[in-house]
Amino acid sequence: MSAPQAIDQFLQTHLNDYIKETSRLCAQPSISTTGLGIDECAELVVEILRQHGLETQIFKTPTYPIIVGRAKGQSERTLLFYNHYDVQPVDPLDLWTTPPFEPTVREGKLFARGAKDDKGELIARLAAVDAVRAAHDGVLPCGVTFIVEGEEEVGSPNIAEFVRDHLDLLKCDGAVWEEGNIDHEGYPTEFLGVRGVMCLELHVRTLTRDAHSGSAHALPNAAWRLVGALASLKDANERILIPGFYDDVRPPTKRDLELIDAMPSYEAFARSQYGVRQFVHGHTGKDIEYAVFEPTCNICGITAGYQDEGTKTVIPATALAKIDFRLVPHQDPDDILLKLRVHLDLNGFADVEIVQPEAPMYPYKTDAEQPLIELSLRTGEEVYGKRGYVEPLAGGSTPVYAFAQPLGNIAAICPGVGYWDNRAHSPDEHIRIEDFLNAARHIARIVEGFADLEK
Amino acid sequence: MSAPQAIDQFLQTHLNDYIKETSRLCAQPSISTTGLGIDECAELVVEILRQHGLETQIFKTPTYPIIVGRAKGQSERTLLFYNHYDVQPVDPLDLWTTPPFEPTVREGKLFARGAKDDKGELIARLAAVDAVRAAHDGVLPCGVTFIVEGEEEVGSPNIAEFVRDHLDLLKCDGAVWEEGNIDHEGYPTEFLGVRGVMCLELHVRTLTRDAHSGSAHALPNAAWRLVGALASLKDANERILIPGFYDDVRPPTKRDLELIDAMPSYEAFARSQYGVRQFVHGHTGKDIEYAVFEPTCNICGITAGYQDEGTKTVIPATALAKIDFRLVPHQDPDDILLKLRVHLDLNGFADVEIVQPEAPMYPYKTDAEQPLIELSLRTGEEVYGKRGYVEPLAGGSTPVYAFAQPLGNIAAICPGVGYWDNRAHSPDEHIRIEDFLNAARHIARIVEGFADLEK
Repeated sequence: MSAPQAIDQFLQTHLNDYIKETSRLCAQPSISTTGLGIDECAELVVEILRQHGLETQIFKTPTYPIIVGRAKGQSERTLLFYNHYDVQPVDPLDLWTTPPFEPTVREGKLFARGAKDDKGELIARLAAVDAVRAAHDGVLPCGVTFIVEGEEEVGSPNIAEFVRDHLDLLKCDGAVWEEGNIDHEGYPTEFLGVRGVMCLELHVRTLTRDAHSGSAHALPNAAWRLVGALASLKDANERILIPGFYDDVRPPTKRDLELIDAMPSYEAFARSQYGVRQFVHGHTGKDIEYAVFEPTCNICGITAGYQDEGTKTVIPATALAKIDFRLVPHQDPDDILLKLRVHLDLNGFADVEIVQPEAPMYPYKTDAEQPLIELSLRTGEEVYGKRGYVEPLAGGSTPVYAFAQPLGNIAAICPGVGYWDNRAHSPDEHIRIEDFLNAARHIARIVEGFADLEK
Repeated sequence: MSAPQAIDQFLQTHLNDYIKETSRLCAQPSISTTGLGIDECAELVVEILRQHGLETQIFKTPTYPIIVGRAKGQSERTLLFYNHYDVQPVDPLDLWTTPPFEPTVREGKLFARGAKDDKGELIARLAAVDAVRAAHDGVLPCGVTFIVEGEEEVGSPNIAEFVRDHLDLLKCDGAVWEEGNIDHEGYPTEFLGVRGVMCLELHVRTLTRDAHSGSAHALPNAAWRLVGALASLKDANERILIPGFYDDVRPPTKRDLELIDAMPSYEAFARSQYGVRQFVHGHTGKDIEYAVFEPTCNICGITAGYQDEGTKTVIPATALAKIDFRLVPHQDPDDILLKLRVHLDLNGFADVEIVQPEAPMYPYKTDAEQPLIELSLRTGEEVYGKRGYVEPLAGGSTPVYAFAQPLGNIAAICPGVGYWDNRAHSPDEHIRIEDFLNAARHIARIVEGFADLEK
């Protein structure tokens, strides 16, 4: 039996055990936004890594623990796996078919908060390592290092410093990044970069307390101030009006656009999945996807005044918007923050307070020709029967910037358990069990091939 | 002992009983916004009116009951009292020192939702009627009719039709309106008119479900749409931009402005009570008060996306604003609603849905020279030691329009239990017990004088 056959047989045989292990990990809440269950989940991750034969340490940070588990291989070369054990909040709770922390299998899918993002990913990788070890008489061909943090969903405020302080511990020759997906046509995907993200809150207070709206001709309304401040940020075509906002934005390269052209169309997918009638900027076709090379300013939430059923005629004394900026390579969050402050001041909104509740993530981009990326595409084709495509810049954000440069300009790949409808960050988050198996098969092949990979 | 002396002695002797009766009524929740406790409260009001010797009937409406209690007097002339037994919602609950439906007396004040608006007012009026009856050997000099409805706080959708259908039952020669206040300098007040109010909801949906903000360059954000729609309604100087919005607005008369000039300054009061730094339109001095003759568009609340602690990077699929328009005499709510729809459509916001959750209230205004108003001012001076002033147009709204014209262009007055800091519609709503006593003394004198009043 060939090694790939042995790997596949091992994973098929133990698949139910790994789904149970994923369920066990998902049943433990770990919401970094509020801190719910974080410490308990960290302990559970330590226990699980040790059960998979990794020498595991837990490191305190000013906030939530970081866990590192390592196993040596025949080769000196080491593959780093980055994951996180924290999850997004679960609201709106009434839209979940089954409770978010009661993992449930139905119709070949495992439903739970974290099933995809990122607990299912972690267990699939551990399964892959188990399978390679089993297929090679208990010896891994390359070393593996797992780093699992607990605050990715709140901007990974400690990971960059942790990496800089532990370069020896984390020394590696390439990385398997947080998560991965096959797309809506079943193609595996790779990426060359991600946008950064800066989350901010805009706070307004106009009165010491709410007032009766019969005085609206006299008393200033915090919600109107906030609406004015927000409206000042964009023109009717969604162009961001903060002076200097686009200074460091560079246009995509010809190669970037070619890579996007080679990707399946996003338009029909988004129309069917999100019921989109009109895309941002009025874009259609590939223009929708090219726009990932532009930064965004997004309203995540607005809170002001009376929000329950029926009416209450009040002048809100306070108003709050939560916004995020997705930043493209070469943009600097600190620079953007300063420009936002100046913009608000110049537009008469000096009373709008900016609060930065968490550290920003910086953008990251590498070049298109990387042996590790080719390894992922080749082994992905073996598993999925389709050669994947490479996304030049992902719209979301991960702390890959914190690893890539400090660890020697390593490349990062993203095989994973996802598909186009996992509902990460949303109610009814889930994975398809078939995807979990394929991801483990794919990752096992990458671990097998990594020792001999030309750097 | 003179009749006024007998009245005052009666009220002083029984004050504690009336405060207990007010507490009993306030302890019964009756939130018309949600319907909580409404039916139980209506039954309690019937019981209380009967205990005060009124022949009482309860009338069903499509929503909440209306109660009418009557007592005959020596004269054919009848004074109508309008009140409501419903109250505003109680949120934010954590800002109440004691629970809103557990009435508590401390430092000479009674704290409870409804203590001022409008249950305390109702009991003070019943106390006044009791006192006049006691001072006149059990016979009232004029007839009294109490009408107490259960949905004033949601726009009184049934009162106008009820009045039209019960003109004989409600036949009267003048009315004591919902509530009254002494101002921050201790002056009793009267009014000649009120603004109307139209509450609306603006709903936006851009996606079938929330999406990850990494797609913000492509997927439309409902919160941004709502911000755009709201921002289109006003310019930077708070001028409302809906075409034709000001068509029917008439400037205040010279007499209106004189009446405002005679009122105590609102500016210092609002600065100290609400911490106002800058008033709407940048007004100062009397201009702040003159602005009541302009209609307003107020945001009562905005709801969109993630609103809890910390961050969640989502594109909201839906967004909602609750707004109210305060309309001045001659403006018509239906006309304004149509103009708003046209404005949104012309500005590219045809996707913003307008919902009208409750019937509007129309504006009302009478002329300055009314014998009933003079009676209230004269008797108020006896009680408070200060002659009250007349507010030509109150900023808030009441359904006085539904009574005044159908019942024969009667005048309405507003003696009452309030002062400048009752916190109606807000946490820690309360009345001062001293004000309750004075209001009852004032109203009793009005009942005494009404039979002989030149119409």
